[in-house]
Amino acid sequence: MSVNGYHVAVVGATGAVGHQMIKTLEDRNFPVSKLTLLSSSRSAGTKLTFKGQEIEVQEATPESFEGVQIALFSAGGSVSKQLAKEAVKRGAIVIDNTSAFRMDEDVPLVVPEVNEEDLKWHNGIIANPNCSTIQMVVALEPIRKHFGLNKIIVSTYQAVSGAGVSAIEELKQQTRDILEEKEPKANILPVKSDEKHYQIAFNAIPQIDKFQENGFTFEEMKMINETKKIMHKNDLEVAATCVRLPVITGHSESVYIEIERDDVSVEDIQKVLKDAPGVTLQDDPAEQVYPMPAYCVGKYDTFVGRIRKDLDKANGFHLWVVSDNLLKGAALNSVQIAESLIKLNLV
Amino acid sequence: MSVNGYHVAVVGATGAVGHQMIKTLEDRNFPVSKLTLLSSSRSAGTKLTFKGQEIEVQEATPESFEGVQIALFSAGGSVSKQLAKEAVKRGAIVIDNTSAFRMDEDVPLVVPEVNEEDLKWHNGIIANPNCSTIQMVVALEPIRKHFGLNKIIVSTYQAVSGAGVSAIEELKQQTRDILEEKEPKANILPVKSDEKHYQIAFNAIPQIDKFQENGFTFEEMKMINETKKIMHKNDLEVAATCVRLPVITGHSESVYIEIERDDVSVEDIQKVLKDAPGVTLQDDPAEQVYPMPAYCVGKYDTFVGRIRKDLDKANGFHLWVVSDNLLKGAALNSVQIAESLIKLNLV
Repeated sequence: MSVNGYHVAVVGATGAVGHQMIKTLEDRNFPVSKLTLLSSSRSAGTKLTFKGQEIEVQEATPESFEGVQIALFSAGGSVSKQLAKEAVKRGAIVIDNTSAFRMDEDVPLVVPEVNEEDLKWHNGIIANPNCSTIQMVVALEPIRKHFGLNKIIVSTYQAVSGAGVSAIEELKQQTRDILEEKEPKANILPVKSDEKHYQIAFNAIPQIDKFQENGFTFEEMKMINETKKIMHKNDLEVAATCVRLPVITGHSESVYIEIERDDVSVEDIQKVLKDAPGVTLQDDPAEQVYPMPAYCVGKYDTFVGRIRKDLDKANGFHLWVVSDNLLKGAALNSVQIAESLIKLNLV
Repeated sequence: MSVNGYHVAVVGATGAVGHQMIKTLEDRNFPVSKLTLLSSSRSAGTKLTFKGQEIEVQEATPESFEGVQIALFSAGGSVSKQLAKEAVKRGAIVIDNTSAFRMDEDVPLVVPEVNEEDLKWHNGIIANPNCSTIQMVVALEPIRKHFGLNKIIVSTYQAVSGAGVSAIEELKQQTRDILEEKEPKANILPVKSDEKHYQIAFNAIPQIDKFQENGFTFEEMKMINETKKIMHKNDLEVAATCVRLPVITGHSESVYIEIERDDVSVEDIQKVLKDAPGVTLQDDPAEQVYPMPAYCVGKYDTFVGRIRKDLDKANGFHLWVVSDNLLKGAALNSVQIAESLIKLNLV
């Protein structure tokens, strides 16, 4: 480790996730010797605060990465494709929060609680999984390890902050308009670059990211493919339906699983999750205790509750999984990867 | 048929569903010779309009049903338990929208598009299923009939209007408070008579109705048991997770099914649903066409889209099912039952 810490860069510093990255580096007292904040030319010049010091955001160029040791990217896939290799060329390790490299065979896709060991074979770029994938594997990996895992069917309840600051503003403005009986305007959701936009206020949109040939959305395919890669289990059956909700922050997931054993009780699963890293068990129906997005904001853990045995299949279980999509789903997981790199002497 | 139509009573006339019942009777030009509007003593005296005429709501008592031929109940299970048999005793046929009699062996549980024939063995009381059950069986019965059906796993996205007018007001007030950065107050949801209440604005609550011994909520058990009864299929595997959302009206459902055959395509399912009664197919991912609650309000049909084949199981399919929970989920289905009774000469 450098005596005074590491030179860290945040690419996409002015975005919803970028803000959380800076805050998380500060909150966790990550060893930063120098912090370089980068963005598009449009946002360059913005001033942000880190540990009481103002830092001016600069336009990201290949040269921005001279001297950078750890670069946290969260500025969209095209920026990562353009600049991540430039950063690696200049000696930085890139932790990329976009989908640009996640499925590349020579790029580890890492959730530290699940597959920290995969960091050992990185070639400069490490991918941070999709938000909805991360919280699901944090909850399911302890179960897989103890009881085996054959099948996952997940339906998501996703917050708008996953689509950025402008989506949050759109939700708030539409909500105000509807309460004042004005016609709401839709310009961002479900996908800014797609043709049609729909109201998200008081609505549920069953589309996140663009549709693929097979009828699944790219978000759904991310959950399916990333889960298999992170768990090193290509024969795992995974299906996903991803839905955007009028929630600002906090993704929820209704998860059905089939494990390998059929002699496992709800209490067995609860016990395993109680001891699992990054998991908080909130599961007491008699006391109406279960996770909810409004109460997970700003917290690091993945919250699991409503664990119950399927009424038909002895190896089937249902769970409700909630986490802050900007933290464990993005910024926190990226910073945790950086912490793991230090711990494993890989940086 | 009576020359001038039937003497109809609406019990719970001042509630969210009661309002829709009166409107639906009018909109569908149901043959009403006299309309009696009933409620608790608290709401008695309220004046409501039917076909341009003001009608004063009266307190519901056993004597209120003298001369009534068709009584539509939607005033809560305890009112139905107290008064439905009194109405039958006085010669009325009761169509009950509460859960009071749904699982009674001598009470038909009817969705006209699915099991209209069950009306023939009624003994005075006919039960209207739970809102979330109705739209699901309307979408799945045509599939079951053509291709067989073995398994259903459903996660719901339910609107607050299912919990009544006060829940709608609570959602709106909490939403205003949060937008003005005030602390929101929760007094109604998830279950008014339960101990704890949680914010619904910008949140998702994985509890609808009270918890049962087995960890499922009563709402979830309703979906499970009612679906088997309506489809006359006790060996059908059904599992449900029911979630309340900040949506005013319109329930959505992410449904996974396994059919009997494994040689069926998405197009086969689409073709069957296109011709199915009460179903509108909205399924064109390339054009971003899929059902959404905000766009189903005030419509009679159940909307189905996002139909896709499971990537692992040849007999597995995923669907997204949306309907107006106050109409097909409650008032419309009750009025349709009354229409079927007339058609089958049962009243």
